[in-house]
Amino acid sequence: MDSRTSLPVVGMVGGGQLARMSHQAAIALGQSLRILATEPDDGAALVAADVHLGAPDDLEALRRFAKGCDVVTFDHEHVPGDHIRALAGAGVMVHPHADALHYAQDKRAMRERLDALGMAVPRWQPVAGAAEVAGFAAEVGWPVVVKAVRGGYDGRGVWVVDSPAALEPILAGGVELLAEERVPLHRELAVQVARSSYGQVAVYPVVESVQHHGVCVEVLAPAPLLPAERAAAIQQLAIRLATELDVVGLLAVELFDVSGRVLVNELAMRPHNTGHWSIEGARTSQFEQHLRAVLDYPLGECTLTAPAVAMANVLAADRAPAQSLDERLHHMFAAEPGVKVHLYGKRERPGRKVAHVTALGDDPAQVRARALRAARVLRDGTSGEGTGQGSGS
Amino acid sequence: MDSRTSLPVVGMVGGGQLARMSHQAAIALGQSLRILATEPDDGAALVAADVHLGAPDDLEALRRFAKGCDVVTFDHEHVPGDHIRALAGAGVMVHPHADALHYAQDKRAMRERLDALGMAVPRWQPVAGAAEVAGFAAEVGWPVVVKAVRGGYDGRGVWVVDSPAALEPILAGGVELLAEERVPLHRELAVQVARSSYGQVAVYPVVESVQHHGVCVEVLAPAPLLPAERAAAIQQLAIRLATELDVVGLLAVELFDVSGRVLVNELAMRPHNTGHWSIEGARTSQFEQHLRAVLDYPLGECTLTAPAVAMANVLAADRAPAQSLDERLHHMFAAEPGVKVHLYGKRERPGRKVAHVTALGDDPAQVRARALRAARVLRDGTSGEGTGQGSGS
Repeated sequence: MDSRTSLPVVGMVGGGQLARMSHQAAIALGQSLRILATEPDDGAALVAADVHLGAPDDLEALRRFAKGCDVVTFDHEHVPGDHIRALAGAGVMVHPHADALHYAQDKRAMRERLDALGMAVPRWQPVAGAAEVAGFAAEVGWPVVVKAVRGGYDGRGVWVVDSPAALEPILAGGVELLAEERVPLHRELAVQVARSSYGQVAVYPVVESVQHHGVCVEVLAPAPLLPAERAAAIQQLAIRLATELDVVGLLAVELFDVSGRVLVNELAMRPHNTGHWSIEGARTSQFEQHLRAVLDYPLGECTLTAPAVAMANVLAADRAPAQSLDERLHHMFAAEPGVKVHLYGKRERPGRKVAHVTALGDDPAQVRARALRAARVLRDGTSGEGTGQGSGS
Repeated sequence: MDSRTSLPVVGMVGGGQLARMSHQAAIALGQSLRILATEPDDGAALVAADVHLGAPDDLEALRRFAKGCDVVTFDHEHVPGDHIRALAGAGVMVHPHADALHYAQDKRAMRERLDALGMAVPRWQPVAGAAEVAGFAAEVGWPVVVKAVRGGYDGRGVWVVDSPAALEPILAGGVELLAEERVPLHRELAVQVARSSYGQVAVYPVVESVQHHGVCVEVLAPAPLLPAERAAAIQQLAIRLATELDVVGLLAVELFDVSGRVLVNELAMRPHNTGHWSIEGARTSQFEQHLRAVLDYPLGECTLTAPAVAMANVLAADRAPAQSLDERLHHMFAAEPGVKVHLYGKRERPGRKVAHVTALGDDPAQVRARALRAARVLRDGTSGEGTGQGSGS
């Protein structure tokens, strides 16, 4: 409890854009997010008043950080479960707790648990060497998807492998792997659900996420042309998962839409890129909702604020653009006065997510085109087709 | 320019809730607002990374603060014009500049200028003593409104006087005064307009503000039952004023609606309480718009995000409520899951504005009732009629 404001202190481990946007939400709730950043120029560390520096796998740094926090939560999956258990054992409130977070940290444990719950996932198998991958491929067909069990994100730790030879550099990494069938997917979907420690749940509309080289580039809310009963079933699946896994906070469920059925792809237990649209597009943003859930406040409404919402990520260009970021921002605002921007305070390195933009309106196609155009201008100063990352348009 | 982000640095003099909410908007624009706060526990100082401490009338503190700012702006009117001129003379970009801000700092200068522009204001007269007030009252009738020429806000520096005897304590204050007729007003209106240094303007819908003892308690957007052509005329008036006074940044115009015509009441050149509804209720919040204007970014859309928006201030109760603020927040969220809250990080002292809430929807009466109920619960834990500050309901 902050003695100056009589309101709780939430500590978030990790200083990236999720912590940065969570801090904006914390301010409205009368709080000031406490952030454990790795570097002083992490996106959230640049804007918050209460910043500690330390590594997420340094137990002593975590202990010092947690002191005075009413609850500790995360902007990533990099805190070892044993450290979380040690904090909890010392009386620190941590949400989500280690046993839940495990399923977002360990892709094998997640798939085993989902299998046990009878929830559909792509066919998969733990693999220790080339022979096992080849055996699995003989069953499901090449190419197969090979994934690092732990530590991957944004396309890292995921490889599409079309022959045993292509496996060599991956196996050389020495990390635990699993193989997964390459599903002939129609598209990817995602859904956010929040669950408080009391057990209240609040679920957002199901969205479509457009991926490019394994990185989310666009999110369309609500998912276009998704029949209401299928959307409701996906929302129920997310609620069931949050409840079964005893998640407290946000759970993001990424799914494959495969000719009329859905397979669970990945889980995250924190605000997630596929929920950024909710800042302007839902009555309660995922960042506010996560704070409310981990603090056991009653949850907020998840309703859409417009018939169509489109979020587009801004991935830094491969070559430094001719115009400065500030100049590109001028051009973007001039071109799209109704699009909302969120810049993360990060240096532009090729392919890095440095911002996202959100457009809202009545017509899904127009809204999507506006978001993509704004993202292109912000990325490299051009708005023409074929120049941006939005291959999905 | 911030070398870490290649984006501009805006410095705001004043560390209250306007700076606090401006910081939230700055974060989305990739910035971190630099704040000159008087105390380390000012609402904005609690949440921002780049906080300087100093008095707004200390020129040396202002000079140190301005170093490295791309532009300096204000969350209040307390910086002396000569200090602003000194900064500008030393090459600091300041918006609004001293000659414009003068009309928001000096009620007499404002009325003289509005008279010269042919814009309607209540009948008024500078007054130096009881005899002059009595003479003015003989002309316009008792009671009259007496106002301090400089330094008043939120009902402070404004007195309704019904006899010469009642003037004595006011005159004893020794401040420069003016007298104004007490207008038989139908209601109060307000409008925000932003103007960039390039000269672009963007105007928000006209709103109704409900006052209680001279303090704004509610704002209804758009102003109910205001004919479109009257609303457009008021918006044109605001644009003309911003242009004539060469305002850069936001201009808030408060008006009296007097049986079919409007009189200008007060001006502010910064984000204003009557514009807080825009955080969720307009496509671009007044806080983002002010930053865009002073940075000469193209301005954002001012369109409403819902047919009806209601903002209610939370004024701290006269007696300490039985429940803690955190408990009241729980109850408020449970009662109104769709209402948005903005807590200012301020200690609760009787009558102090400590938060505001915003409700959005289709039905103006329902939206207003929800905002008022939420404000009551947050204020004192009760939601019953007659217990809150919302006498206007």
